[in-house]
Amino acid sequence: MTTKTHLKIVALAGGVGGAKLADGLARCLPPENLTIIVNTGDDFIHWGLNISPDLDTVCYTLAGLANPETGWGRREESWQVFQQMERLGAESWFRLGDKDLATHLERTRRLKAGEPLSTITRDFCQRWGVEPLILPMSDTPLATMVQTVEFGELAFQEYFVHKQCQPQVTGFRFAGADSATPAPGVLAALQQADALIICPSNPWVSIDPILQILPQDGSWRRFPIVAVSPIIGGATVKGPAAKMYAELGITPSATAVAQHYAGLLAGFVIDAVDANLAEEVRALGIQPSIQNTLMKSAEDRERLAKDVLNFVERFV
Amino acid sequence: MTTKTHLKIVALAGGVGGAKLADGLARCLPPENLTIIVNTGDDFIHWGLNISPDLDTVCYTLAGLANPETGWGRREESWQVFQQMERLGAESWFRLGDKDLATHLERTRRLKAGEPLSTITRDFCQRWGVEPLILPMSDTPLATMVQTVEFGELAFQEYFVHKQCQPQVTGFRFAGADSATPAPGVLAALQQADALIICPSNPWVSIDPILQILPQDGSWRRFPIVAVSPIIGGATVKGPAAKMYAELGITPSATAVAQHYAGLLAGFVIDAVDANLAEEVRALGIQPSIQNTLMKSAEDRERLAKDVLNFVERFV
Repeated sequence: MTTKTHLKIVALAGGVGGAKLADGLARCLPPENLTIIVNTGDDFIHWGLNISPDLDTVCYTLAGLANPETGWGRREESWQVFQQMERLGAESWFRLGDKDLATHLERTRRLKAGEPLSTITRDFCQRWGVEPLILPMSDTPLATMVQTVEFGELAFQEYFVHKQCQPQVTGFRFAGADSATPAPGVLAALQQADALIICPSNPWVSIDPILQILPQDGSWRRFPIVAVSPIIGGATVKGPAAKMYAELGITPSATAVAQHYAGLLAGFVIDAVDANLAEEVRALGIQPSIQNTLMKSAEDRERLAKDVLNFVERFV
Repeated sequence: MTTKTHLKIVALAGGVGGAKLADGLARCLPPENLTIIVNTGDDFIHWGLNISPDLDTVCYTLAGLANPETGWGRREESWQVFQQMERLGAESWFRLGDKDLATHLERTRRLKAGEPLSTITRDFCQRWGVEPLILPMSDTPLATMVQTVEFGELAFQEYFVHKQCQPQVTGFRFAGADSATPAPGVLAALQQADALIICPSNPWVSIDPILQILPQDGSWRRFPIVAVSPIIGGATVKGPAAKMYAELGITPSATAVAQHYAGLLAGFVIDAVDANLAEEVRALGIQPSIQNTLMKSAEDRERLAKDVLNFVERFV
């Protein structure tokens, strides 16, 4: 437990890296003091089912159900349905395991019955034994579109899974951003928060969609915000963030991420290998913190979460 | 092969017993000479998926994919999705295995995309290596409703699976019979047929729905019709047909089935244990044939199909 367990924390998270830190925070904080707001800009329909990749990664990770090897899907997974779907000629570029499939099936059924994604997610978490509140950023669609040289605009999963992040990125668009609203609970959590932590997720396609859905007048930012760099030594542990920076003409680095969030951040956590960038971060008016940010084990997650929480306390 | 392989046969089939004889016929006839029209009155939506129990039983049986123990679903089945669905609080009274689930998932996706059930079924059969034409009786909904003492009117699967055939039956209703039409290919197959075989399926809830969907002026009956009794020694091998006869005040017997179809049949195949009923059948103006109708093995199916085809030839 961190020293100030009374701190109410909201964390913004996307996929694997974000889920790991969120899990670390869940190991450090009383569940009622942690709300995790998760990107749903990657959500899409596949096999007629509503898939929420980031939401599931975060929920599975906190439930201890995530596959540690792939970074997506369930551990101890089987592929019976997938094999039969292939035999029936169904699209096979997005792999859905048997256990994972149940989540999408039941979510789709309940969405079609009129229940909002946030309610369904809360119920699933209860059944999976996840205690902190995990909220989809929105119950209404906001779709992250990746603009590319080769294929023009691609829906995120088309770019990310089907085209394996190969196309050259020129920009992003958040379709539906004008009409999508924060899910019930999101603004209330922000109102009660003492601090906000931006997990080490892709700034362009995991965190920006969440920021897009929040009130654009910035009225929600009444607290210090601390981010953890998803870029370590100029590269990402997983995912295309560094490639995206490079293709957009920005040298991928922790500094580039700090610049991305400039104006939002009070503090920024960079990895020890990037210690030389601390002054660049400070020059942006952001206080740097140098930590071991690589999370290979559950202990790493908890240690980094503690370090981040200790750092956050400086600002509250 | 039967002696007159040029005979074009249409078979009407419901669940397990019907599927077995249909499989026997498929083993005796060139595929282009056999069309199987399958009851879809049991079709329903479960977990948000379109389930066609009889259609799948017939297709799986002919594909060699059917579970020989249960009489439904796939052989070498696993239950990963089902277990996770239970954990998520989904309805668990209708068991869907992993391999089976792929059929419903892909069918549902294609139905929602606007493809008719008959087209989807034809494509699935091609992929499963099923050669004879298997047609759902209709692409439009006709729902078999079971009227009961205890619960009033029940959708068929509610009665059959959820209530395990316990309620006392008072009658049946075919909801949508006025507007439902035969699937494309059904009337053409009947026009080209030399004879029609009614498989040993439940007369009330497997065969009557198919007969309901055909032109009620009887214009399609230009050929001899032969039925195989699903009741052997006053009981059924599987399913509630005998129980239904009893509850409707009719002694369950092969004769009762012959009476059920009276006016349609040229010939009626009864089991050797019911040889004493041959004269009762003959008294109805229907020619009886005494055979071993129990199908325990693939050889039984083929032998019975041959016997039935030989019997049919007397009338063509």
